[in-house]
Amino acid sequence: MVELDFEKSGGLIPAVAQDWQTGEVLMLAYISPESWEETLRSGYATYFSRSRNQLWKKGESSGHLQKIHSILVDCDLDSVIFKIEQLGPGACHTGHRSCFYREVTGDGLQETAAAVFDAGKVYQVKK
Amino acid sequence: MVELDFEKSGGLIPAVAQDWQTGEVLMLAYISPESWEETLRSGYATYFSRSRNQLWKKGESSGHLQKIHSILVDCDLDSVIFKIEQLGPGACHTGHRSCFYREVTGDGLQETAAAVFDAGKVYQVKK
Repeated sequence: MVELDFEKSGGLIPAVAQDWQTGEVLMLAYISPESWEETLRSGYATYFSRSRNQLWKKGESSGHLQKIHSILVDCDLDSVIFKIEQLGPGACHTGHRSCFYREVTGDGLQETAAAVFDAGKVYQVKK
Repeated sequence: MVELDFEKSGGLIPAVAQDWQTGEVLMLAYISPESWEETLRSGYATYFSRSRNQLWKKGESSGHLQKIHSILVDCDLDSVIFKIEQLGPGACHTGHRSCFYREVTGDGLQETAAAVFDAGKVYQVKK
């Protein structure tokens, strides 16, 4: 198994989920050594939830799994890109396809994409 | 100025530098509140170097600046995407255009892109 440098950041490193076809970045979350192993083993993006302090198979409750197509690692082995196929309508707990649905404009934020699903129905608790 | 949530991660949050035209992710680094302010003010990606513990205007020594075209923020305001124009041949201190030049294959890594500049000539110290 490819060994990543989890030590430098205190045990978790960032993973960027990118649509394998369009290149759209859908979310950024963190992985632990166990997440890494489980992602490689299962073929589905598995993060570590900092708020719940536990392994987090993305989409386990919503059904919006992220199927891994390939994985890129950076020069220092302390961040990764999951090139994924997003199952279901989107990745974000707000109902948007991407968590990055707002752009900085002047001193504020502007939505660049509308929600694509009803987050209230899909998620019972905020991720 | 848009306020990001630096507290949750102990003062630094990840910034993903993405080619504004192709969508290629070129690097992931960290920003401090001062980096954020300076990026917005200058229009060039400015990170915080964890190894040197100081503000880091990307490309200041190499000339490989990253001109900001737009900035996206995520749902929790604790990570950002810099949509950039990469000046010069590349972003990575190894001489590659992207820091993510290796793909996980089986139990190993395979280079998916060749170096595009001579890192030894451009960088005197490893970033």
